[in-house]
Amino acid sequence: MGLVVQKFGGSSVANAERVMNVAGRIVDTYKEGNSVVVVVSAQGDTTDDLIEKAKEINPNASKREMDMLLSTGEQISISLLAMAIQKLGYPVVSLTGWQIGMKTDANYGGARIHKIDCERLQKELDSNHIVIVAGFQGINKYDDITTLGRGGSDTSAVAIAAALRADMCEIYTDVDGVYTTDPRIVKNAKKLDSISYDEMLELASLGANVLHNRSVEMAKKYGVNLTVRSSLNKNPGTVVKEVSKVEKMVVRGVARDNDVARISICNIEDKPGMAFKVFSLLASKNINVDIILQSIGREGMKDISFTVSESNLEKTVALLEDNKEALCFEEIKTSTDYAKLSIVGSGMVNNPGVASMMFEALYDANINIHMISTSEIKVSVLINKKNADRAVNVIHEKFNLA
Amino acid sequence: MGLVVQKFGGSSVANAERVMNVAGRIVDTYKEGNSVVVVVSAQGDTTDDLIEKAKEINPNASKREMDMLLSTGEQISISLLAMAIQKLGYPVVSLTGWQIGMKTDANYGGARIHKIDCERLQKELDSNHIVIVAGFQGINKYDDITTLGRGGSDTSAVAIAAALRADMCEIYTDVDGVYTTDPRIVKNAKKLDSISYDEMLELASLGANVLHNRSVEMAKKYGVNLTVRSSLNKNPGTVVKEVSKVEKMVVRGVARDNDVARISICNIEDKPGMAFKVFSLLASKNINVDIILQSIGREGMKDISFTVSESNLEKTVALLEDNKEALCFEEIKTSTDYAKLSIVGSGMVNNPGVASMMFEALYDANINIHMISTSEIKVSVLINKKNADRAVNVIHEKFNLA
Repeated sequence: MGLVVQKFGGSSVANAERVMNVAGRIVDTYKEGNSVVVVVSAQGDTTDDLIEKAKEINPNASKREMDMLLSTGEQISISLLAMAIQKLGYPVVSLTGWQIGMKTDANYGGARIHKIDCERLQKELDSNHIVIVAGFQGINKYDDITTLGRGGSDTSAVAIAAALRADMCEIYTDVDGVYTTDPRIVKNAKKLDSISYDEMLELASLGANVLHNRSVEMAKKYGVNLTVRSSLNKNPGTVVKEVSKVEKMVVRGVARDNDVARISICNIEDKPGMAFKVFSLLASKNINVDIILQSIGREGMKDISFTVSESNLEKTVALLEDNKEALCFEEIKTSTDYAKLSIVGSGMVNNPGVASMMFEALYDANINIHMISTSEIKVSVLINKKNADRAVNVIHEKFNLA
Repeated sequence: MGLVVQKFGGSSVANAERVMNVAGRIVDTYKEGNSVVVVVSAQGDTTDDLIEKAKEINPNASKREMDMLLSTGEQISISLLAMAIQKLGYPVVSLTGWQIGMKTDANYGGARIHKIDCERLQKELDSNHIVIVAGFQGINKYDDITTLGRGGSDTSAVAIAAALRADMCEIYTDVDGVYTTDPRIVKNAKKLDSISYDEMLELASLGANVLHNRSVEMAKKYGVNLTVRSSLNKNPGTVVKEVSKVEKMVVRGVARDNDVARISICNIEDKPGMAFKVFSLLASKNINVDIILQSIGREGMKDISFTVSESNLEKTVALLEDNKEALCFEEIKTSTDYAKLSIVGSGMVNNPGVASMMFEALYDANINIHMISTSEIKVSVLINKKNADRAVNVIHEKFNLA
């Protein structure tokens, strides 16, 4: 008995049959005596289809108009899901982002949530309505529609749970919860019963596609009880919370990210401020840099290598070439042959041997490491893409995660 | 140089190529120095596709959720059209019904416009933006989305033109304007240069699909200058205005309506109040009745015959049967074999011979008349559907409309 926020992704509502299935899940929760707010994404490939429609007319359309277009996807989902719940005979109302007062900044295509006016939501809950909310969308101070970017519906759900002080925020997906690594790569990957916000954050950032890291950040900030569950069965899922219950495992998961491009700036002048110049230039164009490695080159020179997502490779190289004179470097080398492999666990900081165990597993498997990056709760390495699946398996085994 | 409101229907924006074509038309008007507000409908079959999606899940979904669903169709159109205008390099903004403050009553699926808050529209016009507005949709006092029902986009366009005191409201369609009759039936049907609001109103009500009568009513009420033009060529179209310029023609057009069902209540008691009972019963269920004919039946009895649209036939008969005892009638007969044929013209009231000329034309063609209804500016007859095309031709010829 409480207030539950549930989020269902696009594949969960891809067709009429699945919409009816999800409606049944929601009604079950409602019948148990809970107040229920449901956040839903656009059906299946709707968003991609809309993007295709736009590209056919104008590949360089403004982001404002793209948001106007894309937000229709979720509006279709919420009305259909509400109709399905009406068919089951329960009181329901669907609401768009602007109707629930989901106020965001004006950064079209990747807006950040400022606040939620809970008045309408509360009114509908007080009337015992099941409330179906369009995820991924908001409204800015100009009364224009914005979208929240990748993983936006997860973020919508957590933001609503935080604003309403919900007892639970359940993220429904097509897997049973958070695993020690991708079960498609490692057959005996194990589902975790619980995980801490920080660990989940690292896993999410490192390529585990279960939850978007923005939603985990927000859940951590507002202390939202988050559960990742399957929409296809009633298994308990994985609970994400402040401190996960003490388990023996130091390493909680292994993540792989294939979307990695390495850029090396060779023979850049070795004087103070060069790294600042390079990375502030990239930041000014919103290019996210991941692993950075600086090494000594020829006399008075150094090399700076770093990784970006593959989609940013071309843009980054062009930007650096445009500033070749100011940055005084000799040449740029790039490669997309790498994958990033990471181990995550909050126990790591007190267990200095963890990184070397990872390196040992890779050495035993004769897999070369090209770059290394560590934080308090993770170790990431860059290896050849072709070795990635094998590497995930040997590391998973080394840390007895099965 | 002035403020022009243009409305484009769903077939005008059915695909990327047509969207670009419409964008070009709009930009031409803008380049001539006009401020331009454009009202657009959902693309091609979008609305029907959405209705199909809803039916698959729940054929009895609430009208509120249907409006939530259907309003996405226009939102898709406006964003795509705005993108097309961006491609041509002109400043543009798309706005939904709620963004322009299109306030309606709460009659979901057939809402009436209360007023338009012109603030946002005016702000965008002052910024020299071409403004693209979603037709067919509004918002009620609960902040819920409503739709205006059939012909809603025409009504949106006229309402916006009235609210902004636009110099001209142009309704773009796939024909050149308003014709003396359907050019698909009568080869030498003639396009009218101008027509009065009242004549247009009758033609619209009688089955001419060019303009919806709600939009004509509103144009008349607020004195909006209305033009019906083709989106495929630059022909001048037909101007709809208070008093059309004096022309020799008494009869302005011939209209045909195939969507007619005749219901006869046979041997109903001949006492005061029976007609009131029958038609107030139908009105209470929102059934529109068109031609009514009352005749003497057996002693102390009478027959009441009337027409409704075919879609209302079943519902009407069921309603009457349910009230058979209260209404004291013997039996109900129905037929859908009829078509309604009408002649319209404001000169008619002063030319008493007009109706008889129409009857003569039908008599000469050996076409039987089953019901007759007249008003100051129209005469309607019910004839067999199979004779309808021939009847339109002979009447068109009789009045020298070609």
